[in-house]
Amino acid sequence: MAKKPSFESLKGFREFYPDEMAARRQVFDTAERVVRTFGYREVNGPSVEPLDLFRVKSGDEVVEQTYSFTDKGGREVTLIPELTPTVARMVAARAKTMPKPMKWYSWGKMWRYEQPQSGRLREFYQLNVDCFGSSRPEADAEILAVGAEIMLALGLDGEFEFKVNSRQYMNGLLASDIFGIASEKIPAVFTVIDKMHKISEYDFKAQLSSLGIKNKALEILIPALGDVTTFSKLLDFIDKGAEPYGEMTTRLAEVATLLDGYGLAKYFCLDRSVVRGLAYYTDLVFECFDRKGELRSLFGGGRYDGVVELFDGPPTPAVGFAMGDAVLEVLMRRSEKWPERQQETDYYLVWVGEAQRAECLKIARKLREQDKIVETDVMGKDVSKQMSYANYIGAKKVLLLGDEEKRKNMLMVRDMETGQQFQEPLDKYMNPEGDEGGLT
Amino acid sequence: MAKKPSFESLKGFREFYPDEMAARRQVFDTAERVVRTFGYREVNGPSVEPLDLFRVKSGDEVVEQTYSFTDKGGREVTLIPELTPTVARMVAARAKTMPKPMKWYSWGKMWRYEQPQSGRLREFYQLNVDCFGSSRPEADAEILAVGAEIMLALGLDGEFEFKVNSRQYMNGLLASDIFGIASEKIPAVFTVIDKMHKISEYDFKAQLSSLGIKNKALEILIPALGDVTTFSKLLDFIDKGAEPYGEMTTRLAEVATLLDGYGLAKYFCLDRSVVRGLAYYTDLVFECFDRKGELRSLFGGGRYDGVVELFDGPPTPAVGFAMGDAVLEVLMRRSEKWPERQQETDYYLVWVGEAQRAECLKIARKLREQDKIVETDVMGKDVSKQMSYANYIGAKKVLLLGDEEKRKNMLMVRDMETGQQFQEPLDKYMNPEGDEGGLT
Repeated sequence: MAKKPSFESLKGFREFYPDEMAARRQVFDTAERVVRTFGYREVNGPSVEPLDLFRVKSGDEVVEQTYSFTDKGGREVTLIPELTPTVARMVAARAKTMPKPMKWYSWGKMWRYEQPQSGRLREFYQLNVDCFGSSRPEADAEILAVGAEIMLALGLDGEFEFKVNSRQYMNGLLASDIFGIASEKIPAVFTVIDKMHKISEYDFKAQLSSLGIKNKALEILIPALGDVTTFSKLLDFIDKGAEPYGEMTTRLAEVATLLDGYGLAKYFCLDRSVVRGLAYYTDLVFECFDRKGELRSLFGGGRYDGVVELFDGPPTPAVGFAMGDAVLEVLMRRSEKWPERQQETDYYLVWVGEAQRAECLKIARKLREQDKIVETDVMGKDVSKQMSYANYIGAKKVLLLGDEEKRKNMLMVRDMETGQQFQEPLDKYMNPEGDEGGLT
Repeated sequence: MAKKPSFESLKGFREFYPDEMAARRQVFDTAERVVRTFGYREVNGPSVEPLDLFRVKSGDEVVEQTYSFTDKGGREVTLIPELTPTVARMVAARAKTMPKPMKWYSWGKMWRYEQPQSGRLREFYQLNVDCFGSSRPEADAEILAVGAEIMLALGLDGEFEFKVNSRQYMNGLLASDIFGIASEKIPAVFTVIDKMHKISEYDFKAQLSSLGIKNKALEILIPALGDVTTFSKLLDFIDKGAEPYGEMTTRLAEVATLLDGYGLAKYFCLDRSVVRGLAYYTDLVFECFDRKGELRSLFGGGRYDGVVELFDGPPTPAVGFAMGDAVLEVLMRRSEKWPERQQETDYYLVWVGEAQRAECLKIARKLREQDKIVETDVMGKDVSKQMSYANYIGAKKVLLLGDEEKRKNMLMVRDMETGQQFQEPLDKYMNPEGDEGGLT
């Protein structure tokens, strides 16, 4: 006998029923509204791309985690794990003609082929925000401000912190006399530092030793990586005229000063252990974490000035971040900020008897023209069942048109919140233009 | 030498730059707003599904056109070509506990592996609207009304028409004494009728003959298929007490009466040549066409009462449609209804000198809290270059804070539409709560 076909959804993919989708939509809309207020403009591109697009940006290791496959035309393609390469290609094509900065965002589904677990899915939503064309600290600060404002708009004040670092600064630090690490080894050192909080101290030291870092240097490096400085403290140092972290923090100090201007400095700290794994970051790197430190990184980003050139474009500095919904949802649920959404309905219309049906459909249409959410019966339910359905969909008001009301050119209105019931002139609904104040 | 990696996007996939995306977004939002006003609730599901999900619903022929592949786990999967099977599975899982009707919509990218051409892409956006749980004509009429209201909201009055038919009616007609087609042959006859306008009359007749339809019957069938009756005419017949199309049009007459109630009957006609290709339609079938008849079908749908049972759910009647963006865009551009969107910006803030920078960032934040789109410089541009960038992004007002203004606690405001320039108190922007009327 043939195997019964499997209809189950794939592991790591999600279904969203109306209440769940409404909550998710509210979260997405909030994040998107923040990004738009900063003047970022929506773009979009293919959800399937040649695998080479990601190979060239992120190397073979990342490619292993992509949801890649061979298509019917024999091409090596992948469901996109992020939008940066697509957007960089788009910038490359028009960088010479479009004014700078190019401040773009996009929102959509992305995919990764990884073992599904809490906060890590095979299909997820991701918000990508990039500023192309500016190499200045103002752009760094703006990108960080956008990230922080999203978290605040989601009601997460007190629940998150941004850990910021600079690869330029770290390059200087690691190459300095104290550590004396050869510049060609620094990328490998970053890869190890990126794993610092995921592997044992023993393994961490062993891996750094194998890169030629002496024990004496390790004794200084490990506490330095653990030394976190809040931006507020950094600003205090600056006020006092000190430059405690050397030449390379001048730029970070500038970013901190700008974030202070935004009134957001308190959400940021300098954390030397944050370097990010990917080779393509050139200076600023950051990750947003939950304050309790229980969850994986909520999102991260940084500066990647070389990315447009990778796709044959002119040199175009770039800074940005990508924010997925999976860990964010875990944090929002933990802190009871995930919206509990009910279905919203403005009006439910009941007609009594065929004679009133056409009139009711016309009233419904008038209300919908004013963006009201209106339902009428499609089931042949009796009036009492219609009332309980109206209640289920959270209708604010029920309008009822029966023979008696019709004769008097009136409608029966029931306010479902107060339980009050009263009559209103039919005309108020049929000709709302003449009496706009009435429709609330 | 290794082949140069290809970064080009795949054939049949699109990129949307900010202006293009803003226009598209406006179209999507309009369609979605209409659907929501009818009380349809957003749902979503996986974009990758087991191929069996589509095989069981649509048969092997449709599967050939899917963007299917073998995933890294050896599973036969596909990028979804439509959302109905996913949604039907979701309904099947909860049909016993959720109140009816379940009125759901979803919006997102879908994929097909077909030869790209005008109005036919490999990746497209699609709006899916389904009403589950009602077998009544009210549900049929509501679904048709949603479709028509979307087209009207997009400004397409006069540009489209809905061709409606009933498979039940056609079953009766074809099985009647005139044609005498055996019921087991009727699905094959539908498949031929569905191709009527795509193949030559000679081929059409030949294919029907090969199904055993006699020449004499063909002579009646072909004109009958060509005979189009507007719903208005159908309503006239009904008013006169006639039942000119027999028992089976009672239901269609009911649908026409309801659409007349909505005030939408004039956009619909009964066209017996519209039967749709897929086997799973059980009664109502319809397609929306451009009135000039130049384009392929804009969208289509119908009633598929068996779909939830296919996925092991309880018997649950269903009616709905799916509307892609590709042909719609062609029609909207042809009729000059496709929106020409400029970038929207409420304010561009210029600061003169470092001293005012922090204050400017704070003003920007205040304005963003009120959902204003606000940009400030991230490029180190001089004032004149900032003004021309402000112009490029379509800023309505430019605010300028210089030394002199700061001393007077004022801001220089330039209205970019009128060119007028005037001073306003800084406080109006820093403490907008106290002076809400001022921020326009």
